[in-house]
Order: sequence, then structure tokens, then C-alpha cells
Amino acid sequence: MVILGLDPSLSCTGWGVIRIEGSRTTHIANGEVPTDAKAPMPDRLHHLHDAVAAVLAAYAPDRVAVEEVFANKNPQSTLKLAQARGAVLAACGRAGVPVREHAARLVKKAVVGTGGAEKAQVQAMLRVLLPGVAVAGADAADALAVAIADAHLGG
Amino acid sequence: MVILGLDPSLSCTGWGVIRIEGSRTTHIANGEVPTDAKAPMPDRLHHLHDAVAAVLAAYAPDRVAVEEVFANKNPQSTLKLAQARGAVLAACGRAGVPVREHAARLVKKAVVGTGGAEKAQVQAMLRVLLPGVAVAGADAADALAVAIADAHLGG
Repeated sequence: MVILGLDPSLSCTGWGVIRIEGSRTTHIANGEVPTDAKAPMPDRLHHLHDAVAAVLAAYAPDRVAVEEVFANKNPQSTLKLAQARGAVLAACGRAGVPVREHAARLVKKAVVGTGGAEKAQVQAMLRVLLPGVAVAGADAADALAVAIADAHLGG
Repeated sequence: MVILGLDPSLSCTGWGVIRIEGSRTTHIANGEVPTDAKAPMPDRLHHLHDAVAAVLAAYAPDRVAVEEVFANKNPQSTLKLAQARGAVLAACGRAGVPVREHAARLVKKAVVGTGGAEKAQVQAMLRVLLPGVAVAGADAADALAVAIADAHLGG
């Protein structure tokens, strides 16, 4: 079972691929897709869509995991995030890969053991769970975390 | 100059294509892309993305016009709308067609003459501006209205 975790955002979408065999979790790859803040919105969304389509084609995951989206206090941020998410999820639909959504609290709980964990705790636990893995950045770390949580949540 | 107006929404995205020659506006086509409310979100977004990509390929517009998105009072509605918009705008980015956004008030003002116009007024004015045109539905009407407004706003 290969799981692709995604952390969609307009400025930089993180991704991480893991393999699950029984109770063993292996890191396959991770990365980040930044977009040009000066480019028009449709171009940025197209870039995210195609980059995620390329990751899906390259690693052929059995499942995609993303964090549930929440309405931010800043409506403009929420709109940007949701538009990025729409472009990225459309690529998943194209690939025909099932997508599971998990609440951010459940992801933290699955990875660190507590739903209120800080980002730094999640990243420290990733270094334990996936020893020796070079993580591309904070967004890739979040993507790996949601993939690991998805594996723990089973199904 | 051919303009494609889009009215993105998850349940049903409207589209309308017009041609502008000098002061003359001609209707070319309009339609609606409904999605299956029971289908998974990624499938619905993929369907919207590909349907809009097909419209872009068929009519090769010089420009796309959409209404500016606003944060709804219902955050879940806003998220759904923005995700649909993300999938649709990614298709515009793929096609390399410039997209202009217009405030809903400006669209109504351009079509009806007042920013506070009701939907019914917009649709009645469309029947005057594009006589004899069969409009696929309310979402296609909104899409034609934003295309006409875009033409009036010039550039």
C-alpha cells in the first residue's frame, strides 16, 4: 500500500509518499511545489494541478491523504487555500485515486500522540518515524505527517 | 474578440461565449456543467476542470471573465465554491488564456445599469442584449452576464 500525503497551499504545496507493509512504514519520496507569487492565479493553479498529476503518475499511490480544510479567520487566505486545494484535488480525480481527508487534530494525534502538538513536535517525530530521511521543508513534512496518519488510521 | 464568461460552482458551473466586433455583441454558445452531488469531491472537481478545458478548446476565447469570489457567510459554501473555482481556473491556466475578474456589482451595473440589480433583471436584460438566445439556465445566464460586462469594461 502506497500512500501519498498532500499539504495543498497556493504558495507551496507539500507532498510525501510512504509505503506501508504490515506495521512497517518506509519513506519513498517527498517534495514541495512552490508557485510564483507574481504569476496570475490561473497559472499558479495550473502549475499545482500539473505538478501533483506528475507526482501521482510517478508514484502511483493506492490512496491520497489530505488534511480537512478549515475556514481560516482571514477569508482571503481561506479562498486562496481552497482554490489551491481544488486544483490539486482535480488532479487526484483525474488519476482516479481515492482521497481520504483527516482532521488536523487527528493527524497530530496519530503522529505525535496528542492533537494539540506543535509543528516542531510533528517534525521531530517524523525524524523518529522515518529515520535518515531528508525532508524538503515544512510543507513536505506536513504532507508526510498526513500520509503516516492515514496509514495509522487504517482501512 | 471572443470572451468566455464563467460562473464557477461545485454543483453547476455556467459558461457563455460571446463575440465582440466594435460595438456589436454576438452570442456564440452557452451551457452548464452540473456535477454529481453523490460523487467524491475530487471526481467532481476533475469533471469541472475537464469540461471547462473542453469549452476553452472548442471556442478558443481571447479572454476569460469571472466574477470575483467573495467569502460567503457560510464557510462550508465558501470552501466548496473556492475549490470549484480553483479547478476551473487551473483549466484556464492550462489553456494560457488571460482571466479577468470583476466584482458582482460591476457585472450587474454593466448589464442592467445598477449594481443592486436582481438576478431576474439581469436575465431580462440578457434577453434584450442577446435576442432569441436560448440560455441553458441561471448559471449560464450569470456566465453570459460576466462576459458582457467584461466586454463593456473594455481593454
